[in-house]
Amino acid sequence: MVRIAICAPGKRLKRERAEAVEALVAERSDISLHFHEQCFAEDGHFAGSDEVRLAALLDCANDPGFDAVWFAMGGYGSNRIAAQAVAQMNEVARTKSYLGYSDTGFLLAALYKHGIGRVAHGPLAGDVRREGGTQAVERALDWFMGGEGGLEPGLDARPAVAFNLATLAMLVGTELAPDLSGHVVLIEEVAEHLYAVDRLLFHVTQHLGGIAGLRLGRISDIPENDRPFGSDEVAIAQDWCQRSGIPYLGRADIGHDAANKIVPFGLEARAARA
Amino acid sequence: MVRIAICAPGKRLKRERAEAVEALVAERSDISLHFHEQCFAEDGHFAGSDEVRLAALLDCANDPGFDAVWFAMGGYGSNRIAAQAVAQMNEVARTKSYLGYSDTGFLLAALYKHGIGRVAHGPLAGDVRREGGTQAVERALDWFMGGEGGLEPGLDARPAVAFNLATLAMLVGTELAPDLSGHVVLIEEVAEHLYAVDRLLFHVTQHLGGIAGLRLGRISDIPENDRPFGSDEVAIAQDWCQRSGIPYLGRADIGHDAANKIVPFGLEARAARA
Repeated sequence: MVRIAICAPGKRLKRERAEAVEALVAERSDISLHFHEQCFAEDGHFAGSDEVRLAALLDCANDPGFDAVWFAMGGYGSNRIAAQAVAQMNEVARTKSYLGYSDTGFLLAALYKHGIGRVAHGPLAGDVRREGGTQAVERALDWFMGGEGGLEPGLDARPAVAFNLATLAMLVGTELAPDLSGHVVLIEEVAEHLYAVDRLLFHVTQHLGGIAGLRLGRISDIPENDRPFGSDEVAIAQDWCQRSGIPYLGRADIGHDAANKIVPFGLEARAARA
Repeated sequence: MVRIAICAPGKRLKRERAEAVEALVAERSDISLHFHEQCFAEDGHFAGSDEVRLAALLDCANDPGFDAVWFAMGGYGSNRIAAQAVAQMNEVARTKSYLGYSDTGFLLAALYKHGIGRVAHGPLAGDVRREGGTQAVERALDWFMGGEGGLEPGLDARPAVAFNLATLAMLVGTELAPDLSGHVVLIEEVAEHLYAVDRLLFHVTQHLGGIAGLRLGRISDIPENDRPFGSDEVAIAQDWCQRSGIPYLGRADIGHDAANKIVPFGLEARAARA
């Protein structure tokens, strides 16, 4: 039995989405889910104040009654509590699995930096709403159980991490950022103009000089601009890699969508759970 | 006679805007304007390719026939040529005045970092299109002439810089970024959601620990979000200043508008031209 606690470090989760996820595991005896009530809280932009979100995350992470922490939603806000969260995590928290993406990348980064748990970039509980969301949820649950079927297929012998590009750009150089030297860095983006993708990649490649290489996930829902950018996301990534001396290692099977494959951070997190 | 050369390091300038600026100085014998033909070039998102924009900037900066370089438009793209530009500027370029804001902040930063010229954040030539644009242009020209009437009124004995917030966020930690220790940093933003302003200020305050303080210009044209952020720009700036130990020094009279006052970078640039 893998006992998974779910909280929302940024945006709130709609209750019907929690119910949809619960329905998928109702018949299973190998998994239990606990949606922390904070998932459904609302305080302006956030699923509760910083204090409320931090307390819920610590409830999930520090309680020996749970084996894993799954993030409900991205949105925005995990950077506001990540430093305090890792500072207050206990020994139990260090043994757990953590899964999410998008804004929760700030937390994944801080956990990885501090060697806390088995951290991966992959589906959120709230992805159940997407077309193909059932498969996304099943992929996440399989990873929590120790399965490797949902891993991003291009992972190789080098340690890897994955991030939403805007999240990574706001992460680099901050107290939350792990040392990514020698890592393959996978990125994805959604709903950003190509000029903004170009600008984000300028910033990120300036900061990540020592990485093993960059792999480009899906850049989806690009808004129409008043004029075409004149180049596409592959050319943009190749250009900034070339300028910065970072190897461009091709495409990656991650994105802001239900097909988003799982990227464990580092090498140890790829091993099946004990 | 102050001879001002104008080029567009990012977005192209509409020809009628150049004509509107030229009309404002047609009767003056103390100023001459030269709009480089590159201002009107178009190549995808940009006013010409990187090569074309770089060459035009160097034409303006390195030619002893001009005393000052005025940026025509922001948009996006000056970061793509700024490092090459400062590396190729000559001794003449080091004696000139440079003025712009928005995306051209990447260039202002690189110039200031390398001690090139008299650098200031203030109106672009293309601001003539705005309501009150005539005053913005007059303010810029007065600064080029050595006037101090358009300076941001809150400047004090400490060195200052000013940036668009998103530009500053993409600048920090890169090869273009000057050391801002001891500087008062003024910021402004346009057309960003408050959650994005919050995220940008997280990033920027993490990077700028040694500054003398932060002053908040106008945060204008904030798009409506699907939910209110729950706080305003002043509270956001105060919060991140408090978290990072950076003194919050109040509001500043800069913004993406015609009232945008002039902020010379450092102290030396405030002195009238020789």
